[in-house]
Amino acid sequence: MKVQITQENLHRALSTVSRVVGNRTTLPILANVLLHAKLNKLYFSATNLEIGITYLSGVKTKEEGKITIPAKLFLEYISTLPSGTVDLEVEKNSLKITTNHNQSTINGMDAEEFPSIPVITQGSTITLGAQELKTALSQVVLVASSDDSRPVLGGVYIYQKDDELVVVATDSYRLAEKIIKPVNINNKKQEPVRIVIPARSAQEVLRSIEEDTQEVTLVYDGSQAIFKIDTIEIVSRLIDGAFPDYQQLIPTDAQTVVTIDTKAFTSIAKTAGLFARESGGSVTITARSKNNTLSINSTASQIGTAASEAEAKVEGEETSVSVNSRYILDALGVINSETTTFSITGKVTPCLLRPAGSSSYLHLIMPLRS
Amino acid sequence: MKVQITQENLHRALSTVSRVVGNRTTLPILANVLLHAKLNKLYFSATNLEIGITYLSGVKTKEEGKITIPAKLFLEYISTLPSGTVDLEVEKNSLKITTNHNQSTINGMDAEEFPSIPVITQGSTITLGAQELKTALSQVVLVASSDDSRPVLGGVYIYQKDDELVVVATDSYRLAEKIIKPVNINNKKQEPVRIVIPARSAQEVLRSIEEDTQEVTLVYDGSQAIFKIDTIEIVSRLIDGAFPDYQQLIPTDAQTVVTIDTKAFTSIAKTAGLFARESGGSVTITARSKNNTLSINSTASQIGTAASEAEAKVEGEETSVSVNSRYILDALGVINSETTTFSITGKVTPCLLRPAGSSSYLHLIMPLRS
Repeated sequence: MKVQITQENLHRALSTVSRVVGNRTTLPILANVLLHAKLNKLYFSATNLEIGITYLSGVKTKEEGKITIPAKLFLEYISTLPSGTVDLEVEKNSLKITTNHNQSTINGMDAEEFPSIPVITQGSTITLGAQELKTALSQVVLVASSDDSRPVLGGVYIYQKDDELVVVATDSYRLAEKIIKPVNINNKKQEPVRIVIPARSAQEVLRSIEEDTQEVTLVYDGSQAIFKIDTIEIVSRLIDGAFPDYQQLIPTDAQTVVTIDTKAFTSIAKTAGLFARESGGSVTITARSKNNTLSINSTASQIGTAASEAEAKVEGEETSVSVNSRYILDALGVINSETTTFSITGKVTPCLLRPAGSSSYLHLIMPLRS
Repeated sequence: MKVQITQENLHRALSTVSRVVGNRTTLPILANVLLHAKLNKLYFSATNLEIGITYLSGVKTKEEGKITIPAKLFLEYISTLPSGTVDLEVEKNSLKITTNHNQSTINGMDAEEFPSIPVITQGSTITLGAQELKTALSQVVLVASSDDSRPVLGGVYIYQKDDELVVVATDSYRLAEKIIKPVNINNKKQEPVRIVIPARSAQEVLRSIEEDTQEVTLVYDGSQAIFKIDTIEIVSRLIDGAFPDYQQLIPTDAQTVVTIDTKAFTSIAKTAGLFARESGGSVTITARSKNNTLSINSTASQIGTAASEAEAKVEGEETSVSVNSRYILDALGVINSETTTFSITGKVTPCLLRPAGSSSYLHLIMPLRS
């Protein structure tokens, strides 16, 4: 292999694929990046066996070929180089990297030993607006469970409802759901879409969508999904299993509806949360229509107590609910709206956050026993 | 105690004194900040028994008094509050904190249990330009030893030479020295200044000097020093012991003198250093007057090799020296000059870095055996 590439393109490619490279891996070759020059293209691939990323870069190819070299060292080395042309040349099992003033050799391993990244030949295809998908994933992935006991809760469930897609995740204490409209669904099996993507893969997709990315193509079969994002391909396994039927959890009639400035709500939740560490984050939120305020009290504890309130529009009777303040902060952090609608229906029914005036996103939080 | 203070002033005071508060301390009261209201002033104090900080803030005092409360929680709580007036009131052993929309109580401990911060009654006084002191400390403190076997190397040595002060530190592998001119020295004992300040205290002094700080007053006796910086007082113990006589280590006649752009030197040192991890950072620097270049080679290792060069003005014969690349990077990071003079005198004599055209700072690095 012998190619010429710019330092900038090389850096971008390596930064992207290095994200899935582990630091300590039992299989040493997984710490490597696979370089594969073919025609005037250089493919960079890395995998942790759960997620694989391939990045495609245009290069001047003088000789086709392959090699794998340690991804982290290669990236760090390229980061220190000035911008300009970089020559890459394979010599036996090492890669010679040459610029005007720098020359180095990084020892690698034979490309044949690199695990093959899965390919989908008979799959269904969904085309999605990239920014819409990015928003949806960023609004739901944070509530996916990090506990492995119920694998399906560690993923983001995407399913079809007429001509829309519902993107949803839950850890059974809270749930986030976003509805998006795909550009196109080409379903080979004529069955509605129903896939669960591991949270880690969803995060990788999120990070790969740039501000100017237009579309994302998702190709999937029974066990794998590929996200095609500009020059990046992310291959992920799918999670097997039935996602819980959550629709009955969403309260339809709220006892009290609060409309509040998102920043003000965030601020008082943060303040009260500081005093709630001993009690597992538990705070009590009270909405009062009488004086149009939302107040948050931390439970009295060894370290002290706090009470904060903010102005709000409160419709309905005076109600209190005890919740984990961190869950409230997480929800407010992704609500993407200046104003939030917060609905409470008593002490045992989940409370609901939505961006004011929007019905495509909802964030449900189970109350704590107070 | 009952005072009124702005959130901004309260936040600044707590941020400053919290820096010496440890997270896990065997003496629980050391995790607290002492508040002491007297006249229209509020004194904030914290100590880790090695360094004590007192911050003075103007307040509206309604009732004088004292209390100690957990510093970290108090700072975090104040950080979440909006700007504006904050009322502080001691009720038994707790502090009530009130703003327009927030009210909290933080439980504290009796002020009488707080360790007293030392006072110097019979001391010598040095007045220093604040920015000059800041530069000097930042240029030398990084080479102080973190190894406790020779306590005196864990400090910054300040001594008088005629009407100048020499600020110096060494870990025996490298040494940094900066000469500054004090505004005034008022020495009670009529002996030249000779004190060793713990590196940790020097760093605290560094961080406390703001861009607009004009002067720093240093008061010291045989065992303690106080730095007065605007409204901050830092009290530190002094390190006992004789600082090594290092003057004979500084080479007077250089074999080869290299004048080089500081950024270019940094860049090639970083590049070669990446490949020198297995060999403890060892790289070989070669100056060639023939083609006016400085090049750095990493020693061949399992992971690969690297060679980088930069243009430079080289006077003298072609010379090589092996050094730790991290030490070169540390020195270049504090040289504060676009151009660096780098002097080499063979393989066993220390090499020397200076800002080009300045004689007040020098940075000495012992060579490694190549």
